Amino acid sequence: MTNRPDGKLSEEKVFKDPVHRYIHIRDELIWTLISTKEFQRLRRIRQLGTTYLTFHGAEHTRFNHSLGVYEIMRRMIGTLEEKVKWDADERLVALSAALLHDVGHGPFSHSFESVFAMDHEEWTRRILLEDTEINAVLRRMGDDFPEKVAQVIAKEYDNQLLVSLISSQIDADRMDYLLRDAFYTGVSYGHFDMERLLRVIRTDSDQAVFKLSGMHAVEDYIMSRYQMYWQVYFHPVTRSAEVILTKILHRARDLMEQGYAFKLDPVHFRTMFEGDATLSDYIKLDESVVMFYFQQWEDEEDAVLRDLCRRFMHRRLLKYVECTPEKLKEQRPKLEASFRALGVDPEWYLVHDSSSDLPYDFYKPGSEPQSERVPIYLLMPDGSKRELSRESDIVLAISGKKRTDHKFYYPGDILDEQGADNKDVIRIRKILGSLY
Amino acid sequence: MTNRPDGKLSEEKVFKDPVHRYIHIRDELIWTLISTKEFQRLRRIRQLGTTYLTFHGAEHTRFNHSLGVYEIMRRMIGTLEEKVKWDADERLVALSAALLHDVGHGPFSHSFESVFAMDHEEWTRRILLEDTEINAVLRRMGDDFPEKVAQVIAKEYDNQLLVSLISSQIDADRMDYLLRDAFYTGVSYGHFDMERLLRVIRTDSDQAVFKLSGMHAVEDYIMSRYQMYWQVYFHPVTRSAEVILTKILHRARDLMEQGYAFKLDPVHFRTMFEGDATLSDYIKLDESVVMFYFQQWEDEEDAVLRDLCRRFMHRRLLKYVECTPEKLKEQRPKLEASFRALGVDPEWYLVHDSSSDLPYDFYKPGSEPQSERVPIYLLMPDGSKRELSRESDIVLAISGKKRTDHKFYYPGDILDEQGADNKDVIRIRKILGSLY
Amino acid sequence: MTNRPDGKLSEEKVFKDPVHRYIHIRDELIWTLISTKEFQRLRRIRQLGTTYLTFHGAEHTRFNHSLGVYEIMRRMIGTLEEKVKWDADERLVALSAALLHDVGHGPFSHSFESVFAMDHEEWTRRILLEDTEINAVLRRMGDDFPEKVAQVIAKEYDNQLLVSLISSQIDADRMDYLLRDAFYTGVSYGHFDMERLLRVIRTDSDQAVFKLSGMHAVEDYIMSRYQMYWQVYFHPVTRSAEVILTKILHRARDLMEQGYAFKLDPVHFRTMFEGDATLSDYIKLDESVVMFYFQQWEDEEDAVLRDLCRRFMHRRLLKYVECTPEKLKEQRPKLEASFRALGVDPEWYLVHDSSSDLPYDFYKPGSEPQSERVPIYLLMPDGSKRELSRESDIVLAISGKKRTDHKFYYPGDILDEQGADNKDVIRIRKILGSLY
Amino acid sequence: MTNRPDGKLSEEKVFKDPVHRYIHIRDELIWTLISTKEFQRLRRIRQLGTTYLTFHGAEHTRFNHSLGVYEIMRRMIGTLEEKVKWDADERLVALSAALLHDVGHGPFSHSFESVFAMDHEEWTRRILLEDTEINAVLRRMGDDFPEKVAQVIAKEYDNQLLVSLISSQIDADRMDYLLRDAFYTGVSYGHFDMERLLRVIRTDSDQAVFKLSGMHAVEDYIMSRYQMYWQVYFHPVTRSAEVILTKILHRARDLMEQGYAFKLDPVHFRTMFEGDATLSDYIKLDESVVMFYFQQWEDEEDAVLRDLCRRFMHRRLLKYVECTPEKLKEQRPKLEASFRALGVDPEWYLVHDSSSDLPYDFYKPGSEPQSERVPIYLLMPDGSKRELSRESDIVLAISGKKRTDHKFYYPGDILDEQGADNKDVIRIRKILGSLY
Repeated sequence: MTNRPDGKLSEEKVFKDPVHRYIHIRDELIWTLISTKEFQRLRRIRQLGTTYLTFHGAEHTRFNHSLGVYEIMRRMIGTLEEKVKWDADERLVALSAALLHDVGHGPFSHSFESVFAMDHEEWTRRILLEDTEINAVLRRMGDDFPEKVAQVIAKEYDNQLLVSLISSQIDADRMDYLLRDAFYTGVSYGHFDMERLLRVIRTDSDQAVFKLSGMHAVEDYIMSRYQMYWQVYFHPVTRSAEVILTKILHRARDLMEQGYAFKLDPVHFRTMFEGDATLSDYIKLDESVVMFYFQQWEDEEDAVLRDLCRRFMHRRLLKYVECTPEKLKEQRPKLEASFRALGVDPEWYLVHDSSSDLPYDFYKPGSEPQSERVPIYLLMPDGSKRELSRESDIVLAISGKKRTDHKFYYPGDILDEQGADNKDVIRIRKILGSLY
Repeated sequence: MTNRPDGKLSEEKVFKDPVHRYIHIRDELIWTLISTKEFQRLRRIRQLGTTYLTFHGAEHTRFNHSLGVYEIMRRMIGTLEEKVKWDADERLVALSAALLHDVGHGPFSHSFESVFAMDHEEWTRRILLEDTEINAVLRRMGDDFPEKVAQVIAKEYDNQLLVSLISSQIDADRMDYLLRDAFYTGVSYGHFDMERLLRVIRTDSDQAVFKLSGMHAVEDYIMSRYQMYWQVYFHPVTRSAEVILTKILHRARDLMEQGYAFKLDPVHFRTMFEGDATLSDYIKLDESVVMFYFQQWEDEEDAVLRDLCRRFMHRRLLKYVECTPEKLKEQRPKLEASFRALGVDPEWYLVHDSSSDLPYDFYKPGSEPQSERVPIYLLMPDGSKRELSRESDIVLAISGKKRTDHKFYYPGDILDEQGADNKDVIRIRKILGSLY
Repeated sequence: MTNRPDGKLSEEKVFKDPVHRYIHIRDELIWTLISTKEFQRLRRIRQLGTTYLTFHGAEHTRFNHSLGVYEIMRRMIGTLEEKVKWDADERLVALSAALLHDVGHGPFSHSFESVFAMDHEEWTRRILLEDTEINAVLRRMGDDFPEKVAQVIAKEYDNQLLVSLISSQIDADRMDYLLRDAFYTGVSYGHFDMERLLRVIRTDSDQAVFKLSGMHAVEDYIMSRYQMYWQVYFHPVTRSAEVILTKILHRARDLMEQGYAFKLDPVHFRTMFEGDATLSDYIKLDESVVMFYFQQWEDEEDAVLRDLCRRFMHRRLLKYVECTPEKLKEQRPKLEASFRALGVDPEWYLVHDSSSDLPYDFYKPGSEPQSERVPIYLLMPDGSKRELSRESDIVLAISGKKRTDHKFYYPGDILDEQGADNKDVIRIRKILGSLY
Repeated sequence: MTNRPDGKLSEEKVFKDPVHRYIHIRDELIWTLISTKEFQRLRRIRQLGTTYLTFHGAEHTRFNHSLGVYEIMRRMIGTLEEKVKWDADERLVALSAALLHDVGHGPFSHSFESVFAMDHEEWTRRILLEDTEINAVLRRMGDDFPEKVAQVIAKEYDNQLLVSLISSQIDADRMDYLLRDAFYTGVSYGHFDMERLLRVIRTDSDQAVFKLSGMHAVEDYIMSRYQMYWQVYFHPVTRSAEVILTKILHRARDLMEQGYAFKLDPVHFRTMFEGDATLSDYIKLDESVVMFYFQQWEDEEDAVLRDLCRRFMHRRLLKYVECTPEKLKEQRPKLEASFRALGVDPEWYLVHDSSSDLPYDFYKPGSEPQSERVPIYLLMPDGSKRELSRESDIVLAISGKKRTDHKFYYPGDILDEQGADNKDVIRIRKILGSLY
């Protein structure tokens, strides 16, 4: 079973995958990367953060997704191989980048990044380039190999075509997560014909394009993306859990700064809070560790931290109403006063949260990050390129239309407990009914 | 949104479920049980223990499965309702028992129960009957309601028909886990026509029976069960991870008994090891906690504990060969001697493990627990009952045939590191090749 | 096995259906209607006419679809039952109308209706009301029962809610055919969450409405409809086959009018051509009969009829290019001249064909039939109704936007046979390239 | 769009297929074969004969299935390519044979072959070798190419490995029809993991073998086959339709021999009945033609022919009871007498029909055709071969066990019409109840 001098495994390895049926590994490099401890750690970080509290099926991890992105990239290269004539090295750069693109993610990244000055992309870079098992494995391919992979993930690699296969408006990453998240949540949208997309993918000088005959598969992909964002990723219950999670982190940081004596010292958080986490510290911080501390904190002295942790662990979330930012701003003082009268501290329990999405965009006007997107092009029968929304009525209809949704979160259970006759409750309910 | 006096929710609640599409909750009791902290804890206990290390999709939890069993029970009752004429209370006993049947499961139950003198069924009983949120909710239905639910789960309830819907050779529990585990692992067997089974279910005095016209769906179910046991549940890689997990627990217990000074005191394990865990201790012990300690122990002084934990966390499992117990017994001294020469302590690294299954049985001869199974009966057009294997050739062919599989686990990586020329390695490989 | 006095079958009948899994029949009336010869005849009329020549899987018949519409209606009534409180008779009117709504369809209706002055809706009415087995069965329910069913199908029934379940922008008919045609063609669009739609359906005074919480299922349905129209129903290859079919019928009619002596007298067509077909004549005209004659005509003396029939039977279709009606009109004389030079008679071989669709509409301005559609309403949490496109950005984006597609069909094989150097071929190809 | 000198199409052609998702055509030869009129004719011959009268979804044709077998063969060759090193010609022989293996099938082959001295294999051979479009296309590959393809289909080709891919106990033909027929009927058995089978297929000297690691996929295939035979192919309702169909053909032949004057001369049947059908006659005889005549015969003078045709066309089938041949033989005279008393002619209305199947066999004892099957072999890790049932308990359990089922068919409707008091009806029902 010794492997071959060309870097191929003596026998192909196969993972059973519920989304792509099988994931095929033929390169020793890929197999060895999967076996590193930094990659195995992704088994302890859920793909969709707090979404499992809304869709109980969504308990899958980033390990799961990362293998999927790798597999899609492998199939894409299969289609493009004849045309692009990459050398073996470039192929492995692409496969490694696909596999490792999320390796720097921590637990509940969205909330953590909003509280701490941290950035999973920076951690991805450090895991690839500093003293890790992954770095050691990548370096076997050449001293500059880790840097190449890091550049692809950072979208700074010379071969922009290769970059576009992993990061663009239609790429291996998104294809996998839309299909995978739809599968695990059990929703009926989110499906599109990936097999078709992979067959009609072609290359232009520096990006992937799609044959006109596959336009409807592209349309379906765009619509799936739209539905998944609003039905799954921005689901208000999921955001309620994130609101609480964020507040827990804020509270714990505040307490730590104040020198509060935790029953068990949260060493894993300390360096994060203090902003001097080492790579080793960061890698240890997985979801098990976070959940361990949250469970500990259910018995802490601090009433706010204790209550927030119990809410998160036992899924006693905040309720919400739709609002407009203007009306909320206007009514907020009165709302806060009434809640305060019920013993609720507005700082920790009343939250305005917004989500917004631009489903597809085709221009590049400049400043706003979302609008810098490279459009999707179709390859016409005569060999010319044509921007998607010029062919597709349905994509045109939603192009460039950003939609934003505002919610106001509050502890509904406390209102229920007070009873319907309580005059603050009555006042609060009236205001809540007028926010939109 | 206040609920109705008949215990029905003012509006049905719906969970999106990837296996049954939707899970419908109409009873306030069920909704409130799901919201208890003991039930929410099942979100932190995987359904298939270490199987996710073999099938990466199998990251689903017992929360997931418990909702599924409830839903199947709900649908079964829908079919049987007209015939059995249960009162509303009996219906709720059945639904509650279905929902809560696994509530006493701890993390990696199989391994924990083999190391500690514990039994998840006993813990289920305590969670139902002692001072818990679940008990408080159940008691609202009557003082004897918790005991009724506990009796159903223990198979000791008077209404044996109701018991058989949850625990028999073809029941709501098995139907859900076969379909669910097949879905998450992504394997292609494990499917059967549940909708058909639920339509042809009928009742005899004290057990569910199936109309003859649905026999082929029953056959398919039996075959699915057979395939899932051997392809998924007894997969040798999964068992390798369990072997290591069991050894970690043994080692930690030994160290604790010897007064070993852990860097961080494993308080959550202490009462378990000492056999005096309270209900509160037990409930805290979820998989996050276990994984937290295992991560801690990766840096322990004790070399065996440290190595085993690293193996488990980074998926560096033991290799295996098939063996017969006789040949293994005969060769074991020589094997141990050679491994010892390579620095491997046989006590912690060489393990004989066996699995066995009896796919279907129809007689009740007595002593052996597995053979006390109640057979599956078909309801013939003339109203008589007939045992399944008397109608089904294919079930007859496998009835009563117990199959046992023996594996010998060893640290293959250490052999690889020594190089192929090492004379102990050569000797070991030769013996391993002769064990079957 | 005698049936019950309440008109229920003594035992439910079940059809295995690949789309809805099972179709359940509990009413003797429905079972007996299915057994009539007029309903069984639908087994000999394909659901999608010539589409099987483009998507080989689409060989399913109207029998198939009719059962599906019945089943959806049965499920809809299940959801609405508590609310609408229809009597048993009204329920059977609805189920019968669902089952029989297409019973007047003939073979390749689209083409036949464009050539003959006929209308399948008129034939449906006659099959329900004149001397047929279906009429006899319906009359057992009361003398006015057949008329009621006919009124529902004609959308003239008093109970407009009932009518809307079968005929509206979102009804049992469309739900079935979108799902069924997607299933048989194998395309990946066309799916939507029917189970969800059926659960959120509610009633307003005279139409079905959908709870706001199911809006995304409605959106998905609208998008599926859109994709199916353009990807399947208007597929240019299917239309090519229809173009030929229409020409065959025209030619045969012309020949008959001229007193041409067919080798075998096409008696089945004669009354159709002459406009005096009796009900019995019409019922005999199924696809087998049409195909029989087309096969005969492959050996007819008339060269045009012979060639067109061979093209249809052996799938030697016309090629097509996209065109604008203006450019085509301008270029047509030149095109015809060049084709004529190659021996191609423009009257029979050069065809301009257009398809157009309005995916969803919400206003009722008046004259144009398509714009008289009743909009889809959402039922808001406060009990009010709201037109779909006012809530759904994506539906708004495509509402009222009619899209039309023009194609020019020509015998491409004849150009290929002439060789690329032929100056007429060169001229034709040049013009064809300039039509859009 | 001119094709390439290597016989490859300038652009791959793709068919959307609901079973295999896509069917890929890269060879001009295959594309041209599909376009021949003899192959297009398969669109007018249903894959499962009368099964659509039992499972309404099963309306698919042999055209459908033939493309599927081709596609599986294409994928098999993809896996085996590296190992077998066939030249391009051998590959095309294999693909052509897969595509054309059923090209000689006529309408309702089973019944036709039982009435006429005909054999679809002989007609396949003639279509390949005589003056047909298919022969002309094949001959372009070399004068001996048609003969090679014919030899493969007849299992007489030198390269027995190639033969085994199309005709063995596990081959491309069976894989396609099990999956396809399960898909169209909608049954839940019939599924197995074809993708896995195609990945573990290997070659021995003269047959395909399967890697041990894929054994469970092979088991699943065997079980699917078993379930499909008994649940679908031998369904008693389907057989009832075949019984009638066979009687129609017998009656028509008898009448023709007697010089009976048909209202319309059944020219298409005449040569078949007289045993001197030319190839051209045979090719014209498709299901449309058969159905056309059956419709005509619904109005024939001959009462038996008329009644049988109406029964077939309007699905008024014969009822059945299970029987043993011995008991039936004993009771038959009495049964016939009583039926005769009711005006039923036993010759045309009382039929004993049996079906039998041997799901898997592993020995080759000699005479009986079914037992000459070549067993399925597994490829063991050490490179040796092992017969499937020696590894698989479940296959062993059913190996060599032939099961036969006997049914007695009779016109149940006539008994119903007589009323339950008729003494002949009473006698008949009593006897029918005692036949098993």
